[in-house]
Amino acid sequence: MHVMKLLRFSSPEQSGWGILDGKHVQVANGCPYQGTLRPTTQSIPLQDIHWLPPATPSKIVCIGSNYRQHCLEMGRPVPDTPKLFLKPPSALIGNGQHIRLPPGVGRVDFEGELAIIVGRRATRITPKAVSEYLLGFTILNDVTARELQRKDVQFTRAKGFDTFCPVGPWLVPGIEPDDLRIQTHVNNTLRQDSSTADMVFSVRKLVSFISQVMTLEPGDIISTGTPSGVGPLEPGDTVAVTIEKIGTLTNVVEGT
Amino acid sequence: MHVMKLLRFSSPEQSGWGILDGKHVQVANGCPYQGTLRPTTQSIPLQDIHWLPPATPSKIVCIGSNYRQHCLEMGRPVPDTPKLFLKPPSALIGNGQHIRLPPGVGRVDFEGELAIIVGRRATRITPKAVSEYLLGFTILNDVTARELQRKDVQFTRAKGFDTFCPVGPWLVPGIEPDDLRIQTHVNNTLRQDSSTADMVFSVRKLVSFISQVMTLEPGDIISTGTPSGVGPLEPGDTVAVTIEKIGTLTNVVEGT
Repeated sequence: MHVMKLLRFSSPEQSGWGILDGKHVQVANGCPYQGTLRPTTQSIPLQDIHWLPPATPSKIVCIGSNYRQHCLEMGRPVPDTPKLFLKPPSALIGNGQHIRLPPGVGRVDFEGELAIIVGRRATRITPKAVSEYLLGFTILNDVTARELQRKDVQFTRAKGFDTFCPVGPWLVPGIEPDDLRIQTHVNNTLRQDSSTADMVFSVRKLVSFISQVMTLEPGDIISTGTPSGVGPLEPGDTVAVTIEKIGTLTNVVEGT
Repeated sequence: MHVMKLLRFSSPEQSGWGILDGKHVQVANGCPYQGTLRPTTQSIPLQDIHWLPPATPSKIVCIGSNYRQHCLEMGRPVPDTPKLFLKPPSALIGNGQHIRLPPGVGRVDFEGELAIIVGRRATRITPKAVSEYLLGFTILNDVTARELQRKDVQFTRAKGFDTFCPVGPWLVPGIEPDDLRIQTHVNNTLRQDSSTADMVFSVRKLVSFISQVMTLEPGDIISTGTPSGVGPLEPGDTVAVTIEKIGTLTNVVEGT
């Protein structure tokens, strides 16, 4: 089966959505979660684009402690309900953009995650209905200032700095999310290696749970938590999160 | 000095921005934080409008424990840095819309607050420069499911339910925020009565602090914390937050 890969990009001439076609992007009009995506006949070499995150969310909902092995490494109990937090849209960057380490915040960690792009407005939906409301899946790096996270208790500052939310490189519709291998490499060294099968709450349960609290809008991003193996980033590092059937999100780290 | 009051509304015929003119709204084109607001000659009776929140924020940044007396009543220390959290835009409602109590969450509290509307993009600005970046002030009720707040630790679920973010009735440019009386009445009984002079961190310090973390966008909302006197809401209650020089935000509570 051919799997479609949808991306957002900017180039000196234009910006918008496109469809991956080998080493080219087929330019499209409209927007996939507004149901208006229309491919054009124009094509741009992949090497000429600037990657944008594959959604323009009204909110980014994230989950803490959602892999059993990660709960163990953080010394936290396995939760009985999903632990929600938000990252601000101002933190978003695309594939290939730089993660900037803020001055004076101490250790900053990578956290590779499977992310969901919402396709339709969803309020109080059942787990069974969830798949009808999803547009597809992508990759998110939930970059975290670890010392501020402990100091502040609330995660907002530690996880909310500009550039602390790389997402991409594209979104992939129509895949089954419940047993995908997920790996993070830093400078080609394997640091996280797990499967989404280790999640405490499945994609279906998470989306249903969140929709009982807050209405999900088309283009919203839900990130599903990180597996064990989190660790620090240093200026000059290349961090790459790879998820089976999706691809690889790569970002370089920059000091200040 | 004449103080301008800018509001957003919808009516059966149209929706958009307007300027308060006694018991009427003078309809305007454009948007104040895009620098395009242009009054028209059209006027609508105030009683015919449906109130919308006076901004369409990309994020809503809130502050915990920012009044000394409220820290005392909650048994929390006075913080040495502002405690940031986010409310999702899906929680927004306008003046006169109903706060809906979700099923099974236990006690839900009002928290009357002074809120800021950002006028210009702001990254790492100094406290001295803050006033150049603000469009004006309004009123926000930081509705909170108190038992979930304690259980979850992260505030996102407890403060993120649909309708848990009433904002309005309008925004007021050009006022000094540092010593304004703030009161909350429930069914005409006074429950909160303080001054913004009791804030731990002033408006200038808060906005500068947040802008060191995340870029603020035009239309973003920053809420500045609640004074002492918080308490529960019941179905049928009318909750009214009044701030000197701004006005009164009124909402009725609805059960489920």
